[in-house]
Amino acid sequence: MKNIFLEIEYDGTNYCGWQVQKNGIAVQRKIEEAIEGLTGEKLRINGAGRTDAGVHALGQTATFNTESNIPSADLSKALNQKLPKDISIISSREVPVDFHARFSAVGKVYRYIILNRQQRSPFYENKAYKYGKKLDIAAMKEAAGHFIGCHDFKAFMASGSSVEDTVRRIERLEVSKESNLITIEIEGNGFLYNMVRIIAGTIIECGEGRREPAEIPDIISGCNRKTAGRTLPAHGLYLVKVKYSENDFKKES
Amino acid sequence: MKNIFLEIEYDGTNYCGWQVQKNGIAVQRKIEEAIEGLTGEKLRINGAGRTDAGVHALGQTATFNTESNIPSADLSKALNQKLPKDISIISSREVPVDFHARFSAVGKVYRYIILNRQQRSPFYENKAYKYGKKLDIAAMKEAAGHFIGCHDFKAFMASGSSVEDTVRRIERLEVSKESNLITIEIEGNGFLYNMVRIIAGTIIECGEGRREPAEIPDIISGCNRKTAGRTLPAHGLYLVKVKYSENDFKKES
Repeated sequence: MKNIFLEIEYDGTNYCGWQVQKNGIAVQRKIEEAIEGLTGEKLRINGAGRTDAGVHALGQTATFNTESNIPSADLSKALNQKLPKDISIISSREVPVDFHARFSAVGKVYRYIILNRQQRSPFYENKAYKYGKKLDIAAMKEAAGHFIGCHDFKAFMASGSSVEDTVRRIERLEVSKESNLITIEIEGNGFLYNMVRIIAGTIIECGEGRREPAEIPDIISGCNRKTAGRTLPAHGLYLVKVKYSENDFKKES
Repeated sequence: MKNIFLEIEYDGTNYCGWQVQKNGIAVQRKIEEAIEGLTGEKLRINGAGRTDAGVHALGQTATFNTESNIPSADLSKALNQKLPKDISIISSREVPVDFHARFSAVGKVYRYIILNRQQRSPFYENKAYKYGKKLDIAAMKEAAGHFIGCHDFKAFMASGSSVEDTVRRIERLEVSKESNLITIEIEGNGFLYNMVRIIAGTIIECGEGRREPAEIPDIISGCNRKTAGRTLPAHGLYLVKVKYSENDFKKES
């Protein structure tokens, strides 16, 4: 038996999200079907990030166990021949048996993209949040700085979520603008449900002038979802990278 | 009567190109239909660049005369409501009556995008030329430098093309790489048929090690299409910008 690690890119537009659900087509299911078509095995793959409907991935990861003799590095190409064009396996390789895409992860990088212009773009339809009014980028950068560090991010978790430990560490949170595209890139040890989209919504409200960056420390410490910004739409969000400890990754492999 | 100037973005995948032809749907025709739907006028618009089937545009331009009283700046939004999602009018404004999108142009900027990895990408399907093997970026940059200046580019024109004056000036030709994306951006006073795609093909062949950058001056001076590189596919090409003299553009407007 081999434990296989996949890096996956997908356009989430046509899916109910990563995870298999009662209704809708899941990215996970599409990949499981491709594996079954290739090896005949009916199995479950474990993804690192359970991205929502419409959310995209440039570097989702997953692991699964297989009895197949197909060389590990060749699986990516073979699976891509069975997958729809909006899902691509970027790489495949064997990893140690105790390596798990989700539980072995030590951090994740997400990106939120805002198309800051009035007219829609053929290239960013469903791939960025279109926002036509002027945004104060300096205020957005200032806002971003207040999130860095280890905090209780309960105010930035979707209400109704049942997670108990809401403390997370944000290592990096950068706002940049190039032409009409504003990118909010965030790296942390883990994220609560909707956390990136609520942080992005709070940052954009600073850019709109609807709130002050200096309010953010109080919003964080207040732990009240109602005081944070709106949840920005799913289609602007990308799971960019899942991070692992190099040691975990390499041993035995 | 008003002369209206449009800036247009489109994904060329589903079109036979900019220009109306016997077979296939032209981008030009889609915009003419949108204008007719809006103002009732059956008219012809003049585009600056006659992009081929599959070629994209971030900054195509066009002019047309209208009797409509719709405020010029509002036309872009009104037309977008009638256009398919893969065509977007970025801006609209009135320009002097003697201004012509094509004949007033003093230069154009094109971009050729290469996705340099083995696996396909959901985000660059039909939007970049996928090339899986390693490329020598330094050789590609060196090759690019040989094209700068005023030359007879007959060797870089599709055979069968009937243009007589094949001298063009290339102001800028830059090769850059970010992650897996290689971008070739070229600015000149005008381009022959397939010229950008043949120059990109000659540059990539230097990156492949199949030819030396130092050969390029001889290829240019030889004026023989057969000695230049292959024509790269249309779907990696973008018309980025059409340049005008600021004076032409502003007078009377």
